[in-house]
Amino acid sequence: MAVYTDIRDDELHAWLARYDIGGLHALKGIAEGVENSNYLLSTDAGLFILTLYEKRVAREDLPFFLGLMEHLAARGINCPRPVPMRSGEMLGTLAGRPAAIVTYLDGVSVRRPTPRHCRQVGEVLAAMHLAGADFAPRRPNALSLAGWPPLFDRCAARADEVEPGLRDLIAAELAWLGRHWPVGLPAGVIHADLFRDNVFFLKDRLSGVIDFYFACNDLYAYDVAICMNAWCFEPDWSFNVTKARALLEGYTARRPLGRAEYDALPVLSRGSALRFLLTRLHDWLNVPPGALVVPHDPREYLARLRFHQGITEAGAYGLDYAAEAGMART
Amino acid sequence: MAVYTDIRDDELHAWLARYDIGGLHALKGIAEGVENSNYLLSTDAGLFILTLYEKRVAREDLPFFLGLMEHLAARGINCPRPVPMRSGEMLGTLAGRPAAIVTYLDGVSVRRPTPRHCRQVGEVLAAMHLAGADFAPRRPNALSLAGWPPLFDRCAARADEVEPGLRDLIAAELAWLGRHWPVGLPAGVIHADLFRDNVFFLKDRLSGVIDFYFACNDLYAYDVAICMNAWCFEPDWSFNVTKARALLEGYTARRPLGRAEYDALPVLSRGSALRFLLTRLHDWLNVPPGALVVPHDPREYLARLRFHQGITEAGAYGLDYAAEAGMART
Repeated sequence: MAVYTDIRDDELHAWLARYDIGGLHALKGIAEGVENSNYLLSTDAGLFILTLYEKRVAREDLPFFLGLMEHLAARGINCPRPVPMRSGEMLGTLAGRPAAIVTYLDGVSVRRPTPRHCRQVGEVLAAMHLAGADFAPRRPNALSLAGWPPLFDRCAARADEVEPGLRDLIAAELAWLGRHWPVGLPAGVIHADLFRDNVFFLKDRLSGVIDFYFACNDLYAYDVAICMNAWCFEPDWSFNVTKARALLEGYTARRPLGRAEYDALPVLSRGSALRFLLTRLHDWLNVPPGALVVPHDPREYLARLRFHQGITEAGAYGLDYAAEAGMART
Repeated sequence: MAVYTDIRDDELHAWLARYDIGGLHALKGIAEGVENSNYLLSTDAGLFILTLYEKRVAREDLPFFLGLMEHLAARGINCPRPVPMRSGEMLGTLAGRPAAIVTYLDGVSVRRPTPRHCRQVGEVLAAMHLAGADFAPRRPNALSLAGWPPLFDRCAARADEVEPGLRDLIAAELAWLGRHWPVGLPAGVIHADLFRDNVFFLKDRLSGVIDFYFACNDLYAYDVAICMNAWCFEPDWSFNVTKARALLEGYTARRPLGRAEYDALPVLSRGSALRFLLTRLHDWLNVPPGALVVPHDPREYLARLRFHQGITEAGAYGLDYAAEAGMART
């Protein structure tokens, strides 16, 4: 849940006057998006989402995120589309913060995804990878291999407060990943945060994807690994191979994985698990006083990391490569 | 801001199947209402508010609140109207909590009310008092004179943490109010919590009133005093007599105040200030671990109490009784 910036009436009316979306009907802070303040905005022209970007999002990255949404929406991805001001600008300042209005998407996120949901998540992830292939701007992934050691440095001293031995485990994993991280795999724009909250469904059909504020350039197969971690584990933290198979089948039906990408899934899944373990650990140990956010339990991703450490080949994720390659040829 | 209860997909769909409002489009937790979890619900039939009643609201009171909204809406008050299930029931259980669906109201609450807003708040308050006069169910005000000493007992020992001398000040005020609280004034159903967040405007015209979960039977003029405290003080906690006059003029234009009601305004305003000082003090000293709520500063209402302690006659609130009585006759 986000913080809610207080928007003064006069500021809001002046802001809306810069758009061609008519008069204000309602503005309600909504519990959507962790990093920013989001409001459901109702005007003469219908429903929109107004986002105020809080300090964790760098202003210089916003044109990348907004441009990507525009690019993907124009290519048939059902994602929020930035609404331009009369001036043509998509980004302004409201209540002292960078702010934008995007289109509203119907749909609800699922709490307990089924394999049917997972398959569609795989499909839309591949569709986004393909649609983003000709998006020219670049944004390196600050939360990939090179970004993890400095993040770890900021919470290493207190890591064992979460679980004894965690500091040593992470240090060893960072070293191992440094030696085994794949090179030369296909890369491009990835969503990098396609968690359940960021995918909407209507009557069990995927209806939209939101929250592109971690999108960046990185390995496509790393995005698949992020999704497997987000969608294919149960509330008791156990792995569900049926869901993983569905997700991988959905993905490869749209964008076949190369052999090297497939073989790298265990390493990439370990890396993805470590990435979210580190950010959750950091947030867990650094809850600011008066915070409105209940941090996620970092041990959820520690359990995923341990699971992937026990995987020796990608077939354990439920998809046989020969069969997958066969599907790709059809 | 409320807590957000996690609603499972299957629960939600089973719940909606009990209503005649079509299929689910979206459900978004909204930052509205302090005591309950509120969601903006979008279905084939349009927008609604789904409320899950959290533990601070007594289930046995809910028929009173929902019945009152139904009663007032039927008499032209623009307030949320409970949506009945196919069975005719207005109250059910969802995610283990009492739950109801009410109609959605357009409008935005104002952060910085003008006298024009205050006048309309006075008008709608009087309109609610008149419309509720024939509402038969009764609910005593648990947060009136008799309810304050036990509330004070639970935070007296630590009151001076907020301001030295506060404990003695409150004890003396309770004693004084006990001796001066008016008897025999006109009473009926009051809103009892008509703060800025609970009144919507569209283009500076009052468009709706929400949050009836403190409504009860008590003195009408006490409701006026609550509104004066909520609407007629500035962000620096100073009193704005122009706003108070506008609020009182708006009220008396619809429902004239009797002489005894008018004369009691200073005492009732002290009582109202003490009531919110006490609940804020209690919440301030008892923030639960992991709370999603930032408590209000109790000293805001201490300042109001001190202001009203200095008032010797109701004319200080900006409305001359002779003039008011004259208006009432026209």
